[in-house]
Amino acid sequence: MTNEAYRQMWQELGMDLRQHDLFLAALPEAFNTVFLSQSNRPQGMAYFDNLLMEAHGGRIREILDRKKEGKPVVGTFCVFVPEELIFAIDGVSVGLCGGAQFTVPAGERVLPRNLCPLIKSLMGFKLERICPYFQAVDFLIGETTCDGKKKTWEILNEYVPTYVMELPQRKEEPDLALWEREIWRLKKEVERRSGQIIDEEKLARGIRRANARREALRRLYKARQADPVPISGKDVLLISQLAFFDEPERFAARVNELCEELEGRMARGEGVAPKGAIRIVVAGTPMPIPYWKLHHIVESAGAVIVAEETCTGTRYFAGQVEEGGETLEQQLKALARRFLDINCACFTPNSGRVEDILNLAREWRAHGVIYYTLQFCQTYALEARRVEKALKERGIPVLTLESDYSEEDVGQLKTRIEAFLEMLN
Amino acid sequence: MTNEAYRQMWQELGMDLRQHDLFLAALPEAFNTVFLSQSNRPQGMAYFDNLLMEAHGGRIREILDRKKEGKPVVGTFCVFVPEELIFAIDGVSVGLCGGAQFTVPAGERVLPRNLCPLIKSLMGFKLERICPYFQAVDFLIGETTCDGKKKTWEILNEYVPTYVMELPQRKEEPDLALWEREIWRLKKEVERRSGQIIDEEKLARGIRRANARREALRRLYKARQADPVPISGKDVLLISQLAFFDEPERFAARVNELCEELEGRMARGEGVAPKGAIRIVVAGTPMPIPYWKLHHIVESAGAVIVAEETCTGTRYFAGQVEEGGETLEQQLKALARRFLDINCACFTPNSGRVEDILNLAREWRAHGVIYYTLQFCQTYALEARRVEKALKERGIPVLTLESDYSEEDVGQLKTRIEAFLEMLN
Repeated sequence: MTNEAYRQMWQELGMDLRQHDLFLAALPEAFNTVFLSQSNRPQGMAYFDNLLMEAHGGRIREILDRKKEGKPVVGTFCVFVPEELIFAIDGVSVGLCGGAQFTVPAGERVLPRNLCPLIKSLMGFKLERICPYFQAVDFLIGETTCDGKKKTWEILNEYVPTYVMELPQRKEEPDLALWEREIWRLKKEVERRSGQIIDEEKLARGIRRANARREALRRLYKARQADPVPISGKDVLLISQLAFFDEPERFAARVNELCEELEGRMARGEGVAPKGAIRIVVAGTPMPIPYWKLHHIVESAGAVIVAEETCTGTRYFAGQVEEGGETLEQQLKALARRFLDINCACFTPNSGRVEDILNLAREWRAHGVIYYTLQFCQTYALEARRVEKALKERGIPVLTLESDYSEEDVGQLKTRIEAFLEMLN
Repeated sequence: MTNEAYRQMWQELGMDLRQHDLFLAALPEAFNTVFLSQSNRPQGMAYFDNLLMEAHGGRIREILDRKKEGKPVVGTFCVFVPEELIFAIDGVSVGLCGGAQFTVPAGERVLPRNLCPLIKSLMGFKLERICPYFQAVDFLIGETTCDGKKKTWEILNEYVPTYVMELPQRKEEPDLALWEREIWRLKKEVERRSGQIIDEEKLARGIRRANARREALRRLYKARQADPVPISGKDVLLISQLAFFDEPERFAARVNELCEELEGRMARGEGVAPKGAIRIVVAGTPMPIPYWKLHHIVESAGAVIVAEETCTGTRYFAGQVEEGGETLEQQLKALARRFLDINCACFTPNSGRVEDILNLAREWRAHGVIYYTLQFCQTYALEARRVEKALKERGIPVLTLESDYSEEDVGQLKTRIEAFLEMLN
């Protein structure tokens, strides 16, 4: 992106241009090293590369144009927030989890150090005023998925209006009822803030838009079952990360175009790694932009990542919202069901997640699983034991890693990952 | 306690006698240093000193006798679990949070290191088989108050049957309804496990028993409003810790006897510290036996702790369960209300807690507040900011400390606490 063209826009958004320049300065090199250096990339990646380059530029201009038309711009932090309600009224939904070490120290000014880097990073983006999305949003939707986020919304609300959805902690009937009421409550909040009514017709459209995006991502993942794999894990991670920022129809169309290219490769037996390359499934915590560390290490070592059981992976697109609902009651019940079906470590018990990982390992023909958690993420760290046990019982090797957004542990991660891959050979 | 007399009992409980001996060996000296070295202790403390000495001996024998009579023995870990349901059928309820560094390394064998010491300690007590209560219980009742505990119950359940109550995360009407259903569900579980029915009459008695204990503890706290203060913070902490282990009637009777002694002291203007001594309120996370570190440092420096806004303090006994209920529906609703009124950092928002701390500081005439959190306790650490802000606005000095169960930070804590007390002088 040509920064000069956007400086006035950033200034009008109240951004700290000096800090923002510093933040952006490091990205092109990282992007070259991680993505452009790959060989035989699918041509369809060009759209997503450009989307990333324009993430703080052209896409923000688009969003501000929508805002001028009176459409709400809403920030979210979790796959449990039903974007269908925002898509129903042509609002813009952006996922604002932070993935950068650059903003962690700023986050630590108001948050404890013993907190996951994702939360510290997102808070830092707001405090440093270097994220144009944070500056452009009308309000944020937080949720009670973990202790860290739940209590951070109270602090973030001092800087941007932050509405909180209560996600229950079990999946029984009373929980589904509570969650359904929470979706009704969010519907009212979106209506109140946007001045628009969400009726059956609009909501049906919102559901179709989100379903189409999920369908495209599932098709993309399906292509990764092939050996040789037609696309790298890094490229799919980038696409998944960008799903949280783009217009859902356009995004789905481009993913489907890419899938056609990939399916052509599959028919020809063509891939980005040799047939028989070591195949890895990653299970664990989300990887927001610009976090690419783990994928880069694994794929630089000659293996391929074929699936991510993460919030920037299968948890984002698994399952559809039933489209047959004719009344708001039916539609909101269908929404509640699809979202409560997501298997996140925040639930207890959460045995569905173990099944998901076993299925991925089997159907994506993984040689091994990397269980990855962000530092201080207690729910995922505690669930590692059960997942490891289930994988070992089925003879699937697993490597459990804890990391953060810094570069400090790269050497250590490399050593451990290379030893793990060596063992799988 | 004479260990020899109890060795057979411990053996029958499946305990590791060697580890248990090691664990007990350090306690008498710690107890002498922390408690017996105090001057002018109330005579009424003798009962509680003895209760502590017999915690692994005589009290266990009593509990095993009750077990032989067919009464259930139930372990709990949180002030949100309504013991009224256990008291209703003359069951034994014991609080099993861990407060010892001794068992932390064992806990870390199955739990992440980045987890609060209370959880690691309780898990270690079970794994090391050095807690006779853990060995004697029929089942445990966990809850979803924090991420760490919520997911630890899944692991603990591999070793002891662990039932989980879902505490909601907000305090709105739908949350109260969910919580009320959870109390009904627990009632059924207690009935199922004990083979006894909890009817209106029994539950009314259970409620009266728990109310009487709370009433006695409130009276004890009330006495600490006096200047000079008639009892040390350390002694009250010990009493509060023991409340989780003793028979409620006997305990309440002994606390009331002690209160008479204290009220006599107040009438005579007699105390354990000089009139005008620096008065401190502690706010934060629980302090289970044998954690006495913070109180010992503060009171060794010449100040007195006059109230604890903790789970081993006001959160345990604040508010009563309405006794007028004639039907189970009314009684369980009353239970749900009293327990959901507890102000724990697990809720969002949780402004009631700020009010509680301000009230304590005002009515107990504190010169300052120490905000204390266990390491890796994210909810309380994140709530510090709001509490600090409210205290500062009212000109009440506050010192925020994070600590664990080790002795490693004693020097650093002393320095910071002495500097804080110096400033209050």
